[in-house]
Amino acid sequence: MIKSLKALSKRVESIPHDPMLDFMDQVGKVDNLIDLGFGDPDFAVAKNTKEAFIKSINEDHSHYADGQGTFQLRKAAMDYYDQKYDCKIEDPNEILVTGGAAEAINLALLSIVDKNDGIMIIEPEYSQYSTSVALAGGQKIPVDTISNNFKLTPALVEKNYQTALDKGIKPVAIILNFPNNPTGKSYSLDELKELASIFEKLNLWVLSDEIYAEQSYRQKHHSLYPLIPDQTILITGLSKSHSMTGYRIGFAIAKGEVALAMRKIQDTFLTCLPTPIQDAAAFAVKYDPDAGKRTRKEYFKRIKLVVDKLNQLGFSAEMPDGAFYVWAKVPKRFIGKSFEFCIDLAQKARVQIFPGAIFSSTASDYVRISCAQSEKILSRALVSIENYLKQGS
Amino acid sequence: MIKSLKALSKRVESIPHDPMLDFMDQVGKVDNLIDLGFGDPDFAVAKNTKEAFIKSINEDHSHYADGQGTFQLRKAAMDYYDQKYDCKIEDPNEILVTGGAAEAINLALLSIVDKNDGIMIIEPEYSQYSTSVALAGGQKIPVDTISNNFKLTPALVEKNYQTALDKGIKPVAIILNFPNNPTGKSYSLDELKELASIFEKLNLWVLSDEIYAEQSYRQKHHSLYPLIPDQTILITGLSKSHSMTGYRIGFAIAKGEVALAMRKIQDTFLTCLPTPIQDAAAFAVKYDPDAGKRTRKEYFKRIKLVVDKLNQLGFSAEMPDGAFYVWAKVPKRFIGKSFEFCIDLAQKARVQIFPGAIFSSTASDYVRISCAQSEKILSRALVSIENYLKQGS
Repeated sequence: MIKSLKALSKRVESIPHDPMLDFMDQVGKVDNLIDLGFGDPDFAVAKNTKEAFIKSINEDHSHYADGQGTFQLRKAAMDYYDQKYDCKIEDPNEILVTGGAAEAINLALLSIVDKNDGIMIIEPEYSQYSTSVALAGGQKIPVDTISNNFKLTPALVEKNYQTALDKGIKPVAIILNFPNNPTGKSYSLDELKELASIFEKLNLWVLSDEIYAEQSYRQKHHSLYPLIPDQTILITGLSKSHSMTGYRIGFAIAKGEVALAMRKIQDTFLTCLPTPIQDAAAFAVKYDPDAGKRTRKEYFKRIKLVVDKLNQLGFSAEMPDGAFYVWAKVPKRFIGKSFEFCIDLAQKARVQIFPGAIFSSTASDYVRISCAQSEKILSRALVSIENYLKQGS
Repeated sequence: MIKSLKALSKRVESIPHDPMLDFMDQVGKVDNLIDLGFGDPDFAVAKNTKEAFIKSINEDHSHYADGQGTFQLRKAAMDYYDQKYDCKIEDPNEILVTGGAAEAINLALLSIVDKNDGIMIIEPEYSQYSTSVALAGGQKIPVDTISNNFKLTPALVEKNYQTALDKGIKPVAIILNFPNNPTGKSYSLDELKELASIFEKLNLWVLSDEIYAEQSYRQKHHSLYPLIPDQTILITGLSKSHSMTGYRIGFAIAKGEVALAMRKIQDTFLTCLPTPIQDAAAFAVKYDPDAGKRTRKEYFKRIKLVVDKLNQLGFSAEMPDGAFYVWAKVPKRFIGKSFEFCIDLAQKARVQIFPGAIFSSTASDYVRISCAQSEKILSRALVSIENYLKQGS
């Protein structure tokens, strides 16, 4: 680059380097690596949804769509989220179709965050939250849940809110995701009501990322949205429920001015989402609302397989409430060194799992194992892990 | 909204209201309106590209893609832009696949613009530039070309650069689009070399939006990118060349650190673009590079039809160098009142064309007519315009 050109923006510099990339760099190239790192479901999209997609292409739906999302998709999504989680969405302009949940999070943050506003992020966290907060110019306020077995409580919210204030940072919003990636924790309706009360009391915007709602094992998923609709921006989408990560269909659901603000940014940023994919998505939510039920049983079997075996091998893992990850404490000799353990495991046992450090600086005793792969592959990986542990001991 | 929640961000407030929406609001609902406002090609996507798209869906390419874009699409696009416009792209990491040219512009601006940096925008302008500059926190420096029959010159660049400096605004970048939307102006290689020299001298980043490259009628399109590759961010895509506006495939092409910066923001914002659409796009650029040639002939006929007729009707219109719009000065009695004229025309003659005011505050004598519709529809619209003018006179 020519030196005298203006340098890159401070915004770019402020976006933290993704620790996942550091990890992958250190692992380097490993042949025949079994990847239990990423959360990309191995399921195919349902046949009838693919047919609807193909129909749209053949009918030449190759023109611009409404920037808010096609009316058909928004209407179908309104009904879906009303029926599934009692969201009571009253107006199709309260749903915005986005490029995955990722874009929804960014639109929400860009709509409400000014420079140096504090955003509370539950840790361990899905690392995109930190980068999105930085992109919007906000300051991350970590809310570490490790002291409470990874469950958020009103007391934890209040304590961290106060600590931020004491440091001169004004918290304006909180990003909550449940079922949680990576820890698998979720909340009962009573627990959510208690959290809603504290969010209300503290006047926090809540970005409630419920993308794993359909992967709830212990109980029906309850959404935060109907509890405090005036201050919740519901972040969701079809990537996990309908196993369509590569179709990139998400939703931001919110009321009033913030819905209009997100639309304004969407218009500027993307114009609209691809039309034929929206047709496929409309079919999926309308005619195959229970796609997530089919895969849920399979995920449960996979998770149980992994949890049981890991506990036999000296890890300490609980069955998660939801999502499709196993969050496990490493065997004693790797305590505090799960990053090194994961690098060595990838290089020697050819199994990639993610170290806790990717999700929180305090989680160096933990690893995350993704159950997005088949039982067969998971079994093979577990044998490799077992052999690795035997050789190393 | 609850009053005590944090208000919307200043960023949202700073994004100017889209004058096109004002216009549409004032037109209101008109039955059987012929829309010659928007630039959404009526052509279908080529059959073999649709087949490639369908193949990708059937092969279950429904998983995350590389955030930079699929390697296959980037490789095909490298070859395409090298062969078409001599871009000499050396590295597939110098191409980023984006959600249309719209996202490419935003990624470029977010990568280089800090608060209050000046961004020169050629007027009349495609209005998204102003909103994207505001989103990035920059200040628009309008460079009005009306005094030079809508052609940018080094002298105009230098004069407006100096004016901005005098006002205390530091220009760091310029957004140039050619063939130009709305005016249809383009530049010869010699003219581009002169512009490149002044951009180099002034150390400006150049966002060169060449989305209409394949709609060049007078001469072969020359890209600015090979002239000053170290300071150009080439904004392009397949929406116009391959008539796939609703597929949302664009490219940002740039070197070095700014390419990495755009990727970093892309990772944060969208994760990746939809996989099956990238497969369709890879097929389109590799096996149907001349899709734009087929439609070019048709656009030329349409444009000629409109230009000839408008000149007969008392408008003053030149054949454009490129793109698919006719930029016309209105008949004498509507001079200074093209906004009102367009509203009245839509309501009474049921033909929607866009007033110049949407594109520049100094263009109230002009209108833009989109030739994205068929000759048949254009002919019908021209009859309606003729009848309107007769009745009104």
